[in-house]
Amino acid sequence: MERFEPTDPQYESKVRESFARQSIMALIGARLAHVEPGYVEIELGFREDLTQQHDFLHAGVTTTIADSAGGYAAFSLMPPGSSILTVEYKINLLAPAAGETFIGRGRVVKAGRRLFVSEIDVIAKRGDKEVCCLFGLQTAMMLTARPDGPPPG
Amino acid sequence: MERFEPTDPQYESKVRESFARQSIMALIGARLAHVEPGYVEIELGFREDLTQQHDFLHAGVTTTIADSAGGYAAFSLMPPGSSILTVEYKINLLAPAAGETFIGRGRVVKAGRRLFVSEIDVIAKRGDKEVCCLFGLQTAMMLTARPDGPPPG
Amino acid sequence: MERFEPTDPQYESKVRESFARQSIMALIGARLAHVEPGYVEIELGFREDLTQQHDFLHAGVTTTIADSAGGYAAFSLMPPGSSILTVEYKINLLAPAAGETFIGRGRVVKAGRRLFVSEIDVIAKRGDKEVCCLFGLQTAMMLTARPDGPPPG
Amino acid sequence: MERFEPTDPQYESKVRESFARQSIMALIGARLAHVEPGYVEIELGFREDLTQQHDFLHAGVTTTIADSAGGYAAFSLMPPGSSILTVEYKINLLAPAAGETFIGRGRVVKAGRRLFVSEIDVIAKRGDKEVCCLFGLQTAMMLTARPDGPPPG
Repeated sequence: MERFEPTDPQYESKVRESFARQSIMALIGARLAHVEPGYVEIELGFREDLTQQHDFLHAGVTTTIADSAGGYAAFSLMPPGSSILTVEYKINLLAPAAGETFIGRGRVVKAGRRLFVSEIDVIAKRGDKEVCCLFGLQTAMMLTARPDGPPPG
Repeated sequence: MERFEPTDPQYESKVRESFARQSIMALIGARLAHVEPGYVEIELGFREDLTQQHDFLHAGVTTTIADSAGGYAAFSLMPPGSSILTVEYKINLLAPAAGETFIGRGRVVKAGRRLFVSEIDVIAKRGDKEVCCLFGLQTAMMLTARPDGPPPG
Repeated sequence: MERFEPTDPQYESKVRESFARQSIMALIGARLAHVEPGYVEIELGFREDLTQQHDFLHAGVTTTIADSAGGYAAFSLMPPGSSILTVEYKINLLAPAAGETFIGRGRVVKAGRRLFVSEIDVIAKRGDKEVCCLFGLQTAMMLTARPDGPPPG
Repeated sequence: MERFEPTDPQYESKVRESFARQSIMALIGARLAHVEPGYVEIELGFREDLTQQHDFLHAGVTTTIADSAGGYAAFSLMPPGSSILTVEYKINLLAPAAGETFIGRGRVVKAGRRLFVSEIDVIAKRGDKEVCCLFGLQTAMMLTARPDGPPPG
């Protein structure tokens, strides 16, 4: 596993500030659990109002925390003044998203000049048991022209 | 574009009943707009509490409606007594999810014996303008052993 | 279907010259069948030495023509002096690659400033029958710093 | 990393026999380097006639060995009398395929009842240096109705 050196000494605070502006995270009850250079974890508790027809978390919900985990893993490595855009992802749903707590994890596997590729997954925890319910790959792009945050309104 | 014959005459009502059990749809305010054999549309209005850090809909939210649209497009073609499981999807985010209304669309491109492949996309509408903000492919599997619905509790 | 205006009037000859340098195409017997702005077709005849264990074309072979078709569809829209790099693709194998002739097709669905997304597929033809055996999505990146061709040796 | 128990004691010989029937492997000069339960390596030397326009291996060629490595990793875990079909894959091209030798690797990450998900990659070696040039995910399906091999002619 490659270790990355952050190019922004404020990498953790900028990730935390950006995450705090993702209002969807408040709606679903997700929190930013861990940030290190090139690696991020987002935690989410099970809730009935996040489910699909079989009473498991909807894949869109686990994708939400996996996508943000991968994106912020990449963002943690970007220089000050840049922002991030997810280009694409591919996700395999390995098991039903059944559990009490879910950890979305993103880990950068390739930090290019503009493009960052991250491995993303979601671990479903129930008691002592852990199952990987989502596994995927994400490509994100660094935007140097504009800082992170909403467009000026 | 291939036209499909449904093997379940109740295809629309079974899709609507299953969709109604996806509680995440109520949380985000999505509604099932259109069902035909092999094709489904889900509509979602913009809301501030569904956004990411740039004030666009989070990709996980547009993925939620695209995944369900593709899955229900496939489910509409399945025989009575079967249920559906998303195996995987791949999504390109073609443009920011900016708009007033979003239409998630799923269209089956291959109906196999067990596996169904659907093209999925999300159209962002603002006034008269329409932009495709998400485009992808989804693979779903038919489960014959168990009917649609939550596991017996 | 969007129509694209090429930014390079020599779009067809530059695609043909680049294709001619892809020596793998000579090895497998593929030829560039059609070039228009944002759309390319590559044709390949069945050969026993291109197959997998079930006597169908190996997925890597159909991927080869699909990837180049998508990449050259994007390259046809790029300005003079640029070159192209495939970033990623996702491919569904919809049917066995059984046939006499195979047409790999690439069609740009989104031409961004740097990134191009193309729909790619392969049609297997046998007599009058046509089957889509491969369907996918490709992301390619425009490189402005360096012209198409091998690195100076 | 999960360890898998093979359900077929002849797992290695059946993989080797099947690989030997993939005639594309002889054409490109690939050889089956390593087989263990749930893990396979395929080795390929650089050749000029396998390249794209920049003199690197064409992505379709590295995909060929990655796809077979992933598929045979899954096949090694399947019971006697079954065969395998690649359903789909997604591949990120992390670096140019430049090197003297290339190792395609497939490792099963999820062995389901019918579907197998494998991580696939290709390592490019030049002297002592190793670079991962391809990284992806593959889904394959077990066919129980028919043994591995060409359809009866």
